Amino acid sequence: MNIVESEQQEWQARVLESFMQVVKAPYGDFTHLGQLSEAIADDYSLQLMVEFLSRNPQGRRALQERPRLGKVELHQLHKLPENTLGYIYADHMIQNGFTPPPVREIANDDFSFLGAHLGETHDIWHVVTGCDTNKAGEIELEAFYAAQIYASRFWLTLLAKNLLKTAIEDIELCEQHMDALATGWSRGKQARPLFGIQWNQLWKTPLEDLRTQLNLERRMGETVAAANDAVTFS
Amino acid sequence: MNIVESEQQEWQARVLESFMQVVKAPYGDFTHLGQLSEAIADDYSLQLMVEFLSRNPQGRRALQERPRLGKVELHQLHKLPENTLGYIYADHMIQNGFTPPPVREIANDDFSFLGAHLGETHDIWHVVTGCDTNKAGEIELEAFYAAQIYASRFWLTLLAKNLLKTAIEDIELCEQHMDALATGWSRGKQARPLFGIQWNQLWKTPLEDLRTQLNLERRMGETVAAANDAVTFS
Repeated sequence: MNIVESEQQEWQARVLESFMQVVKAPYGDFTHLGQLSEAIADDYSLQLMVEFLSRNPQGRRALQERPRLGKVELHQLHKLPENTLGYIYADHMIQNGFTPPPVREIANDDFSFLGAHLGETHDIWHVVTGCDTNKAGEIELEAFYAAQIYASRFWLTLLAKNLLKTAIEDIELCEQHMDALATGWSRGKQARPLFGIQWNQLWKTPLEDLRTQLNLERRMGETVAAANDAVTFS
Repeated sequence: MNIVESEQQEWQARVLESFMQVVKAPYGDFTHLGQLSEAIADDYSLQLMVEFLSRNPQGRRALQERPRLGKVELHQLHKLPENTLGYIYADHMIQNGFTPPPVREIANDDFSFLGAHLGETHDIWHVVTGCDTNKAGEIELEAFYAAQIYASRFWLTLLAKNLLKTAIEDIELCEQHMDALATGWSRGKQARPLFGIQWNQLWKTPLEDLRTQLNLERRMGETVAAANDAVTFS
């Protein structure tokens, strides 16, 4: 075995160990998710992701300018008209008891920007895609990410984790979870790219207008999380 | 922790150990797959599967009568007209260097029949669905099984395994493999049930007629393994 193969095997062993910790942890355990994200990151897949995201002007500009979401005032956003992204996002955060994403300095490299950007916009992706925060909704959104961010080892690993947990913990939900995965993948491929959007310039835009622009309307048969929209967004 | 919880945790630990062995093994390592199939089987999911498969007359009859494929003479089948199931199945087996499924006695219970029936018809499912035997084709067929056999922990676990292996070994194939998974799931839901079909009475039937009857024609956009049909089945 040469050095490269040896390093590859060590890396895979670390990833699998981290994967098992996430499988054994309850859903939404962010400590282990963070560790998995760190363990699985490598220069090769980062390069593939950056090349893929740079294929469209929005992604290319975001990788150059690295715009950040900045400070989010949920109670200010919650005063906007009820059909706006800002109101619905704030309502989603408040109803779920979530705090706004922290404003933190990051290192001057693509990987740090990718992590920060995707992390701080995650709940906005939930809102614009209409994916609930239950297990099926998270699976739909993970598959959506996998479609929108080619070569992301992280999202594929989360999908593997959730199929495995479904198999051993929630087998009654297998149809719901597989539907969610297939729907998220299909919608992620059909939608315009969400990566790199400067959401903080869109708080006052009606959510329905954004969904139309981004090709995010649900189609016939894509009903996984739709029934929950009324609860989450009303 | 009560006894039920304790047994549940021990079962999950055995399944996860078996899962990791399959992840670390090369593709198509049947020893570890057999161990996983044994480890993950439990009365509860078997009951769900049997209830689901009994919902249609074909499945109900198969579970009562437990028909077996019997001895398969590949070289005899290979003399049938080239458009028949028998010829195309035999050709698939010969081209891939596969031996016919063994004829073996089984215990007198649903689980043994399920395992024997699904095992000995697996390559027929490959042929009628048009799923190749490469990684994408196996993933498509696994998702097809997951749709056709509700509550099967085994197929869901294999999908989890293959998404995890894609993430850490074959990230360039992520789009192809996710497409295969979504397509297999969708086709499995659209197709008529394959479980319980007495294939040995259909060797002389043209494959295209069978695909029409079973609603197995590929639709627009379902192109995952279609390009390989010409190689496998010509």
